[in-house]
Amino acid sequence: MERLLKLKKNKGIDIVVLTSPAAVKYFSGYSFNFETGPSPFHLLPAALIGGDTFSLVLADNEMQPLFDTGITVRPYQSYVFEKPCESTGQFLGRVHDVLGQWGRKIERVGIEQDSLPFVVAQSLTGCLPDAEFIDIGPDISQMRVVKDNDEIAAIRRAAELADIGQSAVLKYARPGMSELELFAKVRLEMESAAGTRVPMMTDLVSGVRTATGGGNPSNRIIGENELVLCDLTPCLNGYWGDSCNTIVVGTATAEQKRIFTLVRSALRAGIDTIRPGIPAKTVDAVMRKILAPEGDFGHHGGHGVGLVYHEEPRIVPYNDRVLEAGMVIALEPAVYKSDWGIRLEHLVLVTTDGTEVLTKFDHVFGQV
Amino acid sequence: MERLLKLKKNKGIDIVVLTSPAAVKYFSGYSFNFETGPSPFHLLPAALIGGDTFSLVLADNEMQPLFDTGITVRPYQSYVFEKPCESTGQFLGRVHDVLGQWGRKIERVGIEQDSLPFVVAQSLTGCLPDAEFIDIGPDISQMRVVKDNDEIAAIRRAAELADIGQSAVLKYARPGMSELELFAKVRLEMESAAGTRVPMMTDLVSGVRTATGGGNPSNRIIGENELVLCDLTPCLNGYWGDSCNTIVVGTATAEQKRIFTLVRSALRAGIDTIRPGIPAKTVDAVMRKILAPEGDFGHHGGHGVGLVYHEEPRIVPYNDRVLEAGMVIALEPAVYKSDWGIRLEHLVLVTTDGTEVLTKFDHVFGQV
Repeated sequence: MERLLKLKKNKGIDIVVLTSPAAVKYFSGYSFNFETGPSPFHLLPAALIGGDTFSLVLADNEMQPLFDTGITVRPYQSYVFEKPCESTGQFLGRVHDVLGQWGRKIERVGIEQDSLPFVVAQSLTGCLPDAEFIDIGPDISQMRVVKDNDEIAAIRRAAELADIGQSAVLKYARPGMSELELFAKVRLEMESAAGTRVPMMTDLVSGVRTATGGGNPSNRIIGENELVLCDLTPCLNGYWGDSCNTIVVGTATAEQKRIFTLVRSALRAGIDTIRPGIPAKTVDAVMRKILAPEGDFGHHGGHGVGLVYHEEPRIVPYNDRVLEAGMVIALEPAVYKSDWGIRLEHLVLVTTDGTEVLTKFDHVFGQV
Repeated sequence: MERLLKLKKNKGIDIVVLTSPAAVKYFSGYSFNFETGPSPFHLLPAALIGGDTFSLVLADNEMQPLFDTGITVRPYQSYVFEKPCESTGQFLGRVHDVLGQWGRKIERVGIEQDSLPFVVAQSLTGCLPDAEFIDIGPDISQMRVVKDNDEIAAIRRAAELADIGQSAVLKYARPGMSELELFAKVRLEMESAAGTRVPMMTDLVSGVRTATGGGNPSNRIIGENELVLCDLTPCLNGYWGDSCNTIVVGTATAEQKRIFTLVRSALRAGIDTIRPGIPAKTVDAVMRKILAPEGDFGHHGGHGVGLVYHEEPRIVPYNDRVLEAGMVIALEPAVYKSDWGIRLEHLVLVTTDGTEVLTKFDHVFGQV
């Protein structure tokens, strides 16, 4: 919150109206449920508004306990079955209440232009006809790149879920089961550990499907001696974890074993390169060079992870951005051949003198 | 598409810029993946733009085969690892290309004010400084209330998934398993039938949790002779199905059996009331009256289902809206007691002379 006050001051902003899930969570602790798509019951579940004090305008059917952040929660009526649904009007009304109580002239309003719905912008213009809108979305994204201790703790918990999932892949993968059957067992272990449903990005592919490295689990039956590539990216309380392993169900070929070892050494080299002061592109280059003899893997070497599953610092060839302690980075080097592929990924915290690997599972190629 | 052309004409609109998932899917067949939240790789996966011909401006990493709708697909560069991500600029550039090719004066632009991001609105204003924006969101929502044959076929497939899930609940529910374990088995059967992951809203609660009728599955262990309430709302190709059953794992009390039969008779009476010309509130009243002696269930009697899982016609006490053939309605009467509850739901198509129940499972209280 101090950071937001500082940003406001630097930009000469009187008041902010924040509407993106990441910004609302970052400053208020309130996290959206997105797994079932946009809700038909409201335009936005929440908006964070404030100058030196802050209000969270929150749909009354989305109330949840918030940590004590000093933010005033101002519920608005969303869906009730007794009356026509007018949640947009209710939301805008509550926003106007908050602005009306301000009592000082509002000349510059900090907004997020990518997530601010036009209807809200129009309403703000009606209420503050002379105000100028300043997009602070990129500033907030930049602010989020270096994580504070609470965030690192939250990402650690998401990484633990990824560990549980990767252990389950090793434990349950058998020839004759479908990718979806394996996924059901893996997801159950993760959801049982969390005690609830867990949104997750997942690549879970077997056999020839590993050659492209990506895809949702399908009815494909896992064959004898096939590879299974599983990239698990669970979201817990708004924060994402990330992980990938590739295993063999049975016996790998000598070539597959060689590549597995090579990718693991590239990942290790990438992790060992990370420390404050190193440009992101150097980490990418170290991994890419080791794997170059096998053909470029054709995607990023990694990316930042936090309230968004892919953010700065992007570990890519062009990125001069210098790493700092508190950044959280997923590294995911890979080799893809014509009919199989291997990708390995760990989630890493940049520390003052190097790294801590947040995902604790081992990259084991076969069942042990 | 004819409907959109007619709407344009009626409103004197030159061009439309549609950005909501429902409208884009409705007119183009393109459906968004929402299960893992907003993508960090683009502002919007797609926008549909046009006057008498139409273009779908589509992120190049979201390309999918579209039915032959006569719509020109215009991909824009979203995320590539070789260059900084400028997908918003690429998207707006492609939108300007489409508008620039228009060749006629654009005075009135039809938009959806709830889903149009401010940054896109600003860009449109820059490109068309004299144009007036007309919100056609509500018109499109109204257009979608009566389903055409393709939509009914799509909803039928989503309803089949719900049937598969409800059969699985009956088949697998046992005392000693957790709600999440049961959910894993149910979801696996549904996802195997679909051949891929299936987004779904789910209430899956047991024992005392059935008293409030809702909630995600948890680690709660299902006890002997407890009720299990499972509301499954899967989404397939953008269209939702809806269903609910409540079963007993073991033996129900006489009171529970009586209430189950009463709720089932209320649902039956609701279905039997539905036909073209009947006001929505009449259907609600018929069910609510039968259940009134047990205390009002405190939520809607039902709602429309389509590209959104809760839409018109809302089956609620105030709704004078008259039912028409082609509407698809979920009815979900319930009785909630202090420590248990029973809700039963079917998905129903309004036909010219009555109804067809789209969910084919039977409301069976115990395992057979």
